[in-house]
Amino acid sequence: MEGFGVHTSMWTMAWDHDGANRAVRGASEYKMDFLEIALLDAPSVDVLHTRALLEQYRMRAVCSLGLPEAVWPSHNPEGAVEYLKLVFNTAKAMGTEAVSGVTYGGIGERTGLPPTETELSNVARALGQIARHAKSLGLLFGIEPVNRYETHLINTGWQACEMIERIGADNIFIHLDTYHMNIEEKGVANGILDAREHLKYIHLSESDRGTPGEGCCNWDEVYATLAAINFNGGLAMESFINMPPELAHGLSVWRPVARDFEEVMNKGLPFLRNKAVQYSLIKKN
Amino acid sequence: MEGFGVHTSMWTMAWDHDGANRAVRGASEYKMDFLEIALLDAPSVDVLHTRALLEQYRMRAVCSLGLPEAVWPSHNPEGAVEYLKLVFNTAKAMGTEAVSGVTYGGIGERTGLPPTETELSNVARALGQIARHAKSLGLLFGIEPVNRYETHLINTGWQACEMIERIGADNIFIHLDTYHMNIEEKGVANGILDAREHLKYIHLSESDRGTPGEGCCNWDEVYATLAAINFNGGLAMESFINMPPELAHGLSVWRPVARDFEEVMNKGLPFLRNKAVQYSLIKKN
Amino acid sequence: MEGFGVHTSMWTMAWDHDGANRAVRGASEYKMDFLEIALLDAPSVDVLHTRALLEQYRMRAVCSLGLPEAVWPSHNPEGAVEYLKLVFNTAKAMGTEAVSGVTYGGIGERTGLPPTETELSNVARALGQIARHAKSLGLLFGIEPVNRYETHLINTGWQACEMIERIGADNIFIHLDTYHMNIEEKGVANGILDAREHLKYIHLSESDRGTPGEGCCNWDEVYATLAAINFNGGLAMESFINMPPELAHGLSVWRPVARDFEEVMNKGLPFLRNKAVQYSLIKKN
Amino acid sequence: MEGFGVHTSMWTMAWDHDGANRAVRGASEYKMDFLEIALLDAPSVDVLHTRALLEQYRMRAVCSLGLPEAVWPSHNPEGAVEYLKLVFNTAKAMGTEAVSGVTYGGIGERTGLPPTETELSNVARALGQIARHAKSLGLLFGIEPVNRYETHLINTGWQACEMIERIGADNIFIHLDTYHMNIEEKGVANGILDAREHLKYIHLSESDRGTPGEGCCNWDEVYATLAAINFNGGLAMESFINMPPELAHGLSVWRPVARDFEEVMNKGLPFLRNKAVQYSLIKKN
Repeated sequence: MEGFGVHTSMWTMAWDHDGANRAVRGASEYKMDFLEIALLDAPSVDVLHTRALLEQYRMRAVCSLGLPEAVWPSHNPEGAVEYLKLVFNTAKAMGTEAVSGVTYGGIGERTGLPPTETELSNVARALGQIARHAKSLGLLFGIEPVNRYETHLINTGWQACEMIERIGADNIFIHLDTYHMNIEEKGVANGILDAREHLKYIHLSESDRGTPGEGCCNWDEVYATLAAINFNGGLAMESFINMPPELAHGLSVWRPVARDFEEVMNKGLPFLRNKAVQYSLIKKN
Repeated sequence: MEGFGVHTSMWTMAWDHDGANRAVRGASEYKMDFLEIALLDAPSVDVLHTRALLEQYRMRAVCSLGLPEAVWPSHNPEGAVEYLKLVFNTAKAMGTEAVSGVTYGGIGERTGLPPTETELSNVARALGQIARHAKSLGLLFGIEPVNRYETHLINTGWQACEMIERIGADNIFIHLDTYHMNIEEKGVANGILDAREHLKYIHLSESDRGTPGEGCCNWDEVYATLAAINFNGGLAMESFINMPPELAHGLSVWRPVARDFEEVMNKGLPFLRNKAVQYSLIKKN
Repeated sequence: MEGFGVHTSMWTMAWDHDGANRAVRGASEYKMDFLEIALLDAPSVDVLHTRALLEQYRMRAVCSLGLPEAVWPSHNPEGAVEYLKLVFNTAKAMGTEAVSGVTYGGIGERTGLPPTETELSNVARALGQIARHAKSLGLLFGIEPVNRYETHLINTGWQACEMIERIGADNIFIHLDTYHMNIEEKGVANGILDAREHLKYIHLSESDRGTPGEGCCNWDEVYATLAAINFNGGLAMESFINMPPELAHGLSVWRPVARDFEEVMNKGLPFLRNKAVQYSLIKKN
Repeated sequence: MEGFGVHTSMWTMAWDHDGANRAVRGASEYKMDFLEIALLDAPSVDVLHTRALLEQYRMRAVCSLGLPEAVWPSHNPEGAVEYLKLVFNTAKAMGTEAVSGVTYGGIGERTGLPPTETELSNVARALGQIARHAKSLGLLFGIEPVNRYETHLINTGWQACEMIERIGADNIFIHLDTYHMNIEEKGVANGILDAREHLKYIHLSESDRGTPGEGCCNWDEVYATLAAINFNGGLAMESFINMPPELAHGLSVWRPVARDFEEVMNKGLPFLRNKAVQYSLIKKN
C-alpha cells in the first residue's frame, strides 16, 4: 500500500476469473505498484485464483467496499462486525494488504439528518471490533470520508480523525479521495492537513470522476501537501467509465464522464504520474 | 438581473413579513443590486407587502425554487405548468424580474437511471408552455443545472443548452452555479463556455456551500471566463448557514459550512466583490 | 499562424542548413502545425533552403526576434525601420507568414526609468512604417510584451493595446507569452482580456521557462480565457533548454530549467496539447 | 519573527525619524505582529529613536537589505563581512531580531554567466563569518533567493539550502518570497518543500508586486504547504507602491502595480490574513 496503483474499475466491475485476469494483467502492463480490488461480493470470490494471480504478476493489492444496508454499523453494529470479519478473512486469503472504503456504512446512507450520537457510537463500537480482527490477521483497515450525498456520517478528513480517535485503534487509517475532498474540504489541502496523522491512502479521482487532469481538482495543491506531510502511503487512480447501471445508480453517474479507457489510461494516468514524480512522491513513471 | 446580488437565505428561509423585512433591509444595507427570493410557498406570499418593500428600498429581485414531487415535469408536465403559472403570476405581482432555479424538476429528483427520452420530452413540453406564459408577463425564465445527486436530468451547462435549443423558446436563460459546476464540469470554465449563448445568471457559491473564497472553487477562472464572454447578467452570492432541518435535508448539509453570518458577509462577500471589480464585472464594491 | 506550433529552440539556436533541417524535420515528426523560427541573424539565412525545406515538409512558419541595441526604435527609429525591412524581406523570401517578438526594442532594453513620451513616440513612428512595409509584403507583424526586466517599454497586454491604437495600423497584432504574463498581469487571464481585440499569437511558456505543466502557470485559466474570446490564432510552445551562453545571458537562464529535450517534448508538449483539445482550441493532438 | 508582519515600504522608504514614526505607528494601527525595516543606509539610522519607538508600540522588527556593489561577497568577501558586521550591530542596537534579504549579494548582481565556484566559495566564506558575528549578538541571519534577473547566485529554495549546508552555520535561515518563487520554482510549493529545513521567514508578495490576491500567485498552495510543514516563522506582506525612482529602478517597477495604499492595506492585507487564519498559520486577524 505504497506507490502508485489503480482501482479495478478500469478493467472490470466483477471479480470473477475473467475480470480478475484482465485487471491484474492490465495493472501489470501499466506498471502499477498495486491494484485496488472492489470487493462487492466477498463470498463469491475464488480466493486461491486471486492469490495465484497476484503472485504470478507480483502485484500487490488492497480491497475496498461499501456495506449493504442490512449491515450498516449505524443501526446494526453486530451485523456489520460479522459481515466485515468475513470480508477481512477473504481479503487475507486473497493475499491483499488492507480493506478500506466506506467500511463504516453504505454508499448512499443518509437519514436526512446530521449523524446522531447513537449512530456514531454504534459505528465506533463496530469499527473497534473490526480493527482488532484486522490486527489479528495482520491487515490494515481504512475508512474513507465521502461526500454529503453519499453519507451523512463522515464527510471530511477532520470527521474521520475524530472517529479514529474515538475508537482508539492504532491500525485504522484514513483513506481520502480527491473527488469527495473537492466537495467537502475548505481547500482540498485542508482534508490532507486534518487527516495527516492517520492518512495512509488516497484516491486520485477527478472532480467529475472522469479523466484526471481535465476537471476542477487542484492537483498541485494535492501533491504539494502530500509531499509536505511526507506522505508515503498508496496513491490510487480512480475513474469511472462504462459503469453497469446498478453501480452508476449507486454513484450517481448519469453520463459518460470520460470518453473511453484509453483517454483515462493514456492521458489521465500519465498526468497523475508525472505530477507524482515532480513532487517526489514516486520515483519514476 | 444584473450587478451583484445575494440569496435571501442569508437572512431568512421563510418569506413572511418578518423574513421579507429582514432580507430586503439587509440586502440594502450591504448595497446589493438585487435579491434572490426563495419562493418555496408561492400561495402564502403577501405579494403587496413584498412589492411595497422592494419599492421602498429600491431593491430589484428575482425568484428561485425547485418543484415539489407531485408536479415534477418529467412525469406530470401538466401539473408542472399549472404550478409554475401560479409561481410566475406571484413573482409578477411581487414585482420581481425572473423565476429561476430547478424549474424543470425537484431538488433530489433521481430515478436511479439516466434521463429517458420520455422524461426529457415531458420536461421540454412543460417548459415551452411556461416560457410562453412568462413572456406574456414580461418575465424571464431560468433553468439551473445542479449536480448529479440533486437531479439526473440536467447536470451541466451543455445539457441546459441542449434543453433550451430543444424547446426553442427565446426567453429561457441558463442559470449556472459554481458549487454544482465544481462537481460536474470539466474545469469550471467549461460550464460557462458551453452555456454562454444563454447564460444570464450565476450563483457564486463555494465548493462546500460555505464562505466564498475559502473552498476549492477556482474563482479567477470563473470570473475571467465570465469577463471573456462579456457576461452582463446577475451575479448572486449563495451560502447556506443555519439551515432549518427540512432544508438541510434537501441540500444534504449536515454540518455548519460557515461559522456564521458575519464570516460570510464580511469575509466572503468582499472577496467575491473585489474579484468582480478586478475583472470589471461590476463597477465598484 | 493558427493551430499548435513550437519554437525552434527545441532543436537549434542557429538557423544554418543543419539547424534548419533538424528543426523542420523535428517539427514535422511531432506533427506541429507551424514552426517559430528565431531570426537572430537575417542576412545569414539561406532563404531558398528554408523555403524549400518548409515546402518539402508542408510546414508553415513565423519568424521572431528582438532587435540589436544599435537599432532600438526608442532611440533610433530610422535604423529600426531599415533593419526590420530587411528582416521582413527575408521572412517573406523564406516563405513565412509573420514577424513577431520584441520587434519594438531589445531583450534587456531598460533605461532605469519608466518609458518616456519620446521613446514611445519613436517606437510608434517606427512600427507604423514597418507595418506598412509588412502589409505591402502580405505579412503579419506582431509585438510581444515581455516582463519588466527584459524591457521597460511594453510589459502588459494593455500597454501593447495602447501602442497599437496609437499607431493605428490594422496589421499589427499582439503576441502574448504566458511566462511574461505570469509576472506582469493581474491574473494571467487579464492579459488576454486586455489584448483580446488584437491577439493573434501566444507563447505557451512555463513560469520558469522549463517543462510546461510543471510550473506556476495556471494553464486552465489561460486556455479557458482563450476559448472564451474565440481565439483562433497560433499557440506556440516555448521552452529553453541547453542554451548557448550568449543566449542564456540575454534570457537570464542560469541553470537547466528542464531535464532534457525528451522531458519537454514527451511530457510538456502532450500536457499543452491535451489541454488545447479539452478547450476545443485545436481539434486533436 | 513569527506571526504576521509587513514591510515598511507601505509607509516609507527612508528610515529617518519621520519615516520610522509613520511606519511603526501604522503597523501598530493595523495590528501587525512585526515590522520589516528596509535598512538601506545603516550608518544614518538613529538607533535609539528606533529602539524607543519599537518599545513604545511594543512592535517587534527585523531588518532587510541588499548589498551595495562595492561589497558584494562574490568578489569582495572581506568588504562584505565588514559591511554586514556594521549592519548587524545597528540592527542589534535598534532592538530588532534578525537581518535578512539579499545578504549574499546585490539586487541586480549578474555577471551574465552562471555562478562560478569562486563566487559561491567567496559568498560561503563571507556568510560563515557573518553568521558567527550574528550569533555573538543573538541575532538571526537570513538569505533570500530572488529571481534570475535580480541575481545569478541564488534563485531557488534549493540553491539557498545548498548554500546553507555548504556554510554549515546553524543560525542562517532561508527567507522565501512568493514573488520570486512564482518565477523560479517548479510550482510555488516546491520552493517551500526544498527550503523546509531552514525556512523561517516568507515574503507574501503578489506576482506583480501589487495588491495581494489580485495576481497570479496560487495562495492556497503557498499557505497549505506552509501549514503542512508546520511553518511557524514570520509571514510578511510586501507590496511596492509609490516607489522613489532610484528604487523603482532597482526593482524594475515601471508602472503603479497597485492603485494606492488603501487598496493594498484594505483589500490585499485582509485577503492574506483571512487565508492565514483559514490555514491556522495565525490565530485571528
